Amino acid sequence: MSQPTLSLTKDLTIRFSEVDSMGVVWHGAYALYLEDAREAFGLKYGLDYMGMVARGFYVPMVDMHIRYRQPIIYGQAVTLRIDYVPTEAAKLIFEYTLTDSQTGEVLCTARTIQVFIHKSDRRLAWTCPDFYDAWKARWNIHA
Amino acid sequence: MSQPTLSLTKDLTIRFSEVDSMGVVWHGAYALYLEDAREAFGLKYGLDYMGMVARGFYVPMVDMHIRYRQPIIYGQAVTLRIDYVPTEAAKLIFEYTLTDSQTGEVLCTARTIQVFIHKSDRRLAWTCPDFYDAWKARWNIHA
Amino acid sequence: MSQPTLSLTKDLTIRFSEVDSMGVVWHGAYALYLEDAREAFGLKYGLDYMGMVARGFYVPMVDMHIRYRQPIIYGQAVTLRIDYVPTEAAKLIFEYTLTDSQTGEVLCTARTIQVFIHKSDRRLAWTCPDFYDAWKARWNIHA
Amino acid sequence: MSQPTLSLTKDLTIRFSEVDSMGVVWHGAYALYLEDAREAFGLKYGLDYMGMVARGFYVPMVDMHIRYRQPIIYGQAVTLRIDYVPTEAAKLIFEYTLTDSQTGEVLCTARTIQVFIHKSDRRLAWTCPDFYDAWKARWNIHA
Repeated sequence: MSQPTLSLTKDLTIRFSEVDSMGVVWHGAYALYLEDAREAFGLKYGLDYMGMVARGFYVPMVDMHIRYRQPIIYGQAVTLRIDYVPTEAAKLIFEYTLTDSQTGEVLCTARTIQVFIHKSDRRLAWTCPDFYDAWKARWNIHA
Repeated sequence: MSQPTLSLTKDLTIRFSEVDSMGVVWHGAYALYLEDAREAFGLKYGLDYMGMVARGFYVPMVDMHIRYRQPIIYGQAVTLRIDYVPTEAAKLIFEYTLTDSQTGEVLCTARTIQVFIHKSDRRLAWTCPDFYDAWKARWNIHA
Repeated sequence: MSQPTLSLTKDLTIRFSEVDSMGVVWHGAYALYLEDAREAFGLKYGLDYMGMVARGFYVPMVDMHIRYRQPIIYGQAVTLRIDYVPTEAAKLIFEYTLTDSQTGEVLCTARTIQVFIHKSDRRLAWTCPDFYDAWKARWNIHA
Repeated sequence: MSQPTLSLTKDLTIRFSEVDSMGVVWHGAYALYLEDAREAFGLKYGLDYMGMVARGFYVPMVDMHIRYRQPIIYGQAVTLRIDYVPTEAAKLIFEYTLTDSQTGEVLCTARTIQVFIHKSDRRLAWTCPDFYDAWKARWNIHA
């Protein structure tokens, strides 16, 4: 049986302050966009950040890899897609694609990996937290 | 008897990411510089942020007023001066002056006001916390 | 005859990265919100930043005054209102009000002043640029 | 013959605004630190950003990969090392290591790749710009 596809697509909102002196979006600002995408994904699928904190876990970033293919210009209409990547590990893995909303040209791809740490003592969770297993089951994910 | 002058002068460090598409420092970045100045002041005079948190108080900003007189260009040598403004109130008031390090021209002036809130329940402190009174006495401040 | 009221109200979008270690929005992030509001205002009323640049003017900030009344918490629904303040001077003046969307409580007020400088040589415009006069006439503003 | 090692080590300056609601440095802020390291490297070795722009090239980021191993806490003394990675391609490649200044523990490693584009028409430079070849020769780099 095929895996379900959990994903979300949203319009990117570029702020003037994110544009650098070359007139394009500063590369460091993309981390904000990925975070926005994760949060929108979390709200759609019931995996938002504050909900995970409320269940006793922080979910820090351990790996962020961004490939910039074309610059983004202030005012450009950009679409951001986030895909959940199924995994057996106690990790949250997402892939991202930014495309020009009009031409469909790919502007950037990225991948992030997060882990779970116990809020109480900041220990790493080596196995999936119960709430994450339940979430996977709910969405029929078999990694 | 005259008041002591508690102040600190430091070189401003401008980051490339703080420069906007006009090639000058983005106006919102100045809040970072003022914060850097407060922290350097705090470390010099024994009033650093984490020390105040450790004593049970958050010190949120309630008023920030920035007057931009000349743009700051990336690579420009800028000097930032911070002055403590004595007050009887349960407040921290600072004034700031940014000048061109070479010409002495004033580029920006600013003023911030912070209050004390109890970390435990986030209530506003209507009178000066003991540690702040002690700090004023130590530096011979009679507001 | 009474002045027209040019204003815009929008929902505030708070990013996780804008929340500080006290769990509230960092005071410096408000400059972003005010900028977002100006840009939304500009798009609604035909006074957007890139349009002004295209007409030959930069519009730098010369004065920003923010009064923080209540902290903003991550996830809180906040409404941001921006009002254009009529003036005879060659300035853009705006006032801002952030309120809790549910209770209506005022969380923050602010005021900004921008001037016009010629893009070509960065001279200050002492009188209103023609496009700004035309814009005022279009919206029936008599300052 | 062995390659020369072009590197630089500096103390990391963490700003309060870069700390998130978990009390650790927000993962997106690391892009700032890497940029600071590149700029310090450039000033030391004659390859600073504005100098490259003056020679007619922008040097945008095309790949940024950050591996976060341990969180960085506000106030923690952190050392940042940047290494130039020799390459025949028309690219700038750097590797970064952030360590606890006291224990030497590795907190983060990263790698960035930049390319050269002509400032005049934003075309990608397929071969090394002359100034970059000259720079390599000056530092005895044979990639």
